[in-house]
Amino acid sequence: MKPLITSPTFFIGKEANDLISFGSGQPDLPPPDAVFSILPHYHDFKYGLIQGQTNLRTALAKEYPNASADNFVITNGASEALDLSFRFLAQKGEKILLPRPYYYSYPYNAKYVGLETKFYDLVNGKINLDNFAENLEGCIAVLINSPSNPTGTVQDVDTLRQVEKLAQARGVYVISDEVYKDLIFDRENYLIRGDDVITVNSFSKTYAMCGFRVGYLYATNPEILRYARNVKTHTSMNTNILGQEMAYEATKVPRDYLEKQVAIWQGRRDLIYQGLLELGLELNKPEGAFYVFPKMQNSNKVVNDLYYDYNMVTYDGSWFGFPDHVRFSYALDVEKIKEGLSRLKQYLAKNPV
Amino acid sequence: MKPLITSPTFFIGKEANDLISFGSGQPDLPPPDAVFSILPHYHDFKYGLIQGQTNLRTALAKEYPNASADNFVITNGASEALDLSFRFLAQKGEKILLPRPYYYSYPYNAKYVGLETKFYDLVNGKINLDNFAENLEGCIAVLINSPSNPTGTVQDVDTLRQVEKLAQARGVYVISDEVYKDLIFDRENYLIRGDDVITVNSFSKTYAMCGFRVGYLYATNPEILRYARNVKTHTSMNTNILGQEMAYEATKVPRDYLEKQVAIWQGRRDLIYQGLLELGLELNKPEGAFYVFPKMQNSNKVVNDLYYDYNMVTYDGSWFGFPDHVRFSYALDVEKIKEGLSRLKQYLAKNPV
Repeated sequence: MKPLITSPTFFIGKEANDLISFGSGQPDLPPPDAVFSILPHYHDFKYGLIQGQTNLRTALAKEYPNASADNFVITNGASEALDLSFRFLAQKGEKILLPRPYYYSYPYNAKYVGLETKFYDLVNGKINLDNFAENLEGCIAVLINSPSNPTGTVQDVDTLRQVEKLAQARGVYVISDEVYKDLIFDRENYLIRGDDVITVNSFSKTYAMCGFRVGYLYATNPEILRYARNVKTHTSMNTNILGQEMAYEATKVPRDYLEKQVAIWQGRRDLIYQGLLELGLELNKPEGAFYVFPKMQNSNKVVNDLYYDYNMVTYDGSWFGFPDHVRFSYALDVEKIKEGLSRLKQYLAKNPV
Repeated sequence: MKPLITSPTFFIGKEANDLISFGSGQPDLPPPDAVFSILPHYHDFKYGLIQGQTNLRTALAKEYPNASADNFVITNGASEALDLSFRFLAQKGEKILLPRPYYYSYPYNAKYVGLETKFYDLVNGKINLDNFAENLEGCIAVLINSPSNPTGTVQDVDTLRQVEKLAQARGVYVISDEVYKDLIFDRENYLIRGDDVITVNSFSKTYAMCGFRVGYLYATNPEILRYARNVKTHTSMNTNILGQEMAYEATKVPRDYLEKQVAIWQGRRDLIYQGLLELGLELNKPEGAFYVFPKMQNSNKVVNDLYYDYNMVTYDGSWFGFPDHVRFSYALDVEKIKEGLSRLKQYLAKNPV
């Protein structure tokens, strides 16, 4: 009896021999050594500031224009930054506009705070501004996620500027989930700006620190910052003080570390993108993050077949609100990517899509 | 210009020379050495299970009757366990019954999930069952906090058994906040049991690990556990994996470590309790935790005077819903407690209460 795979949680703890996992969205390469170098002599244990350690926030302020440490709240990963942002927005209105396909937590983040959801559909991974503007009607906020999980696409700078203008003109809050900001292949990240913008970010993807759960939100609006601090005071208090010190060490790593990482991701991107094209799949060329999202009819069947018959983990586009697509995370080494492509070729030979 | 002190957050970062702080509720003595001993060789970095590391949950299961690892969700301190519990309850009804005086987060925990609050008043720190039963009417849940922050009182076992019966008979959920369970002077902790009980606990007080934010919730009801895991999946994911390993090391510390800790707390308790009695204050003898809560008229004025004129931090009972009382945390060494009592004596000589 093979249970039907209906959500990513099915794969948790599945580590069979010879399994090729294009599933979980986390780097396989370790964090910079500096992250671990403070551990042997670490001895603090008391509560930290709710908004986060001053050294870490001061270091982050250097990465944002005209920012100070006060513009940041350090959180338990980007997940808590999202939750705090959604909690804030639920005080302000009733409906939030989300991208589709979406990172699978967003609809739950909305549900758990009682916000209704509306969606703008990405076209080949890109925002269509007319569709976007139309759907924005009646929403208190909109979420932008560039680079995108699950598509790997990056929105054009012009589009993001239009989004800023539209949001400002309509008096709409923006949550900008930029957790993949340091994993863009063709340009620097464009920071979405505005008085009512909440930027959500993380050390998980840039520095491979997923398990340590250090993220943050950045905002210029003092009301947002105050609300986030207040809620956090009563719902989790400070983020793990040692995780924050490790994140602080990461901020001091020379820039060429990031460049080397991006080069590795880009090599893998090229490999899997070309490989999928050669298998005849239809897909957009990913410009960031570490996902590809080819079109594959009956995606749930594909995901089940690939797991049970080819020992491969992939994620059904339906879990991201976008059926008939499959997400492949390429956070695994080149040999495994090649082996996965080879198995996929065998599968497609028998099951054309 | 001396700003009026109106909340505990005023004192954050105040570390003047010669300051005597009876404020923050955290142990001053460090965690057991074993907590730090794993650090030099730690190298994991990937996501952990949402519900927490298996080794830690398996160790906790040994401390609870007929429990298994599945009965636990490891959280970002007891704070997140409380938040997840309140989120669950908000799906079930509209009103929660809280103790008064209360740990100051509880009313906010209710507010942030949209639950109304009702209160049962502790009499000399103890639950009055008639008043309790009467107020329970119309509530979906009740919160018990024994040992209590801020009173330091421990509820009688008979009372807790009556609470169990009442809750079960009325079909009411119980949140039992037992974070001070290992700091009771006269008996073992009594675990409140029942199908609809959520036990909230923490490594912060028992093992002085406040800054690492490792707590947990324990329940036997699978619906509660599933809900907590689901919400945590989207609002914070796993608790910091290294903090959990440190907590796991703490679970292996021999029992006599705890006995020595409790003996230290008891010595301090005796000192401050006797000292306050000798100053003529009216108070209950604390039976657990590390707080005393004497009656002092105009408690906000007392707290302001003591800070500005005597360089002492104390917390206004109003912040716990109970004016005309002042909370003293005795989580500081004996010499400082003596110095604090001496300053308080000078103050009371000029300002009788």
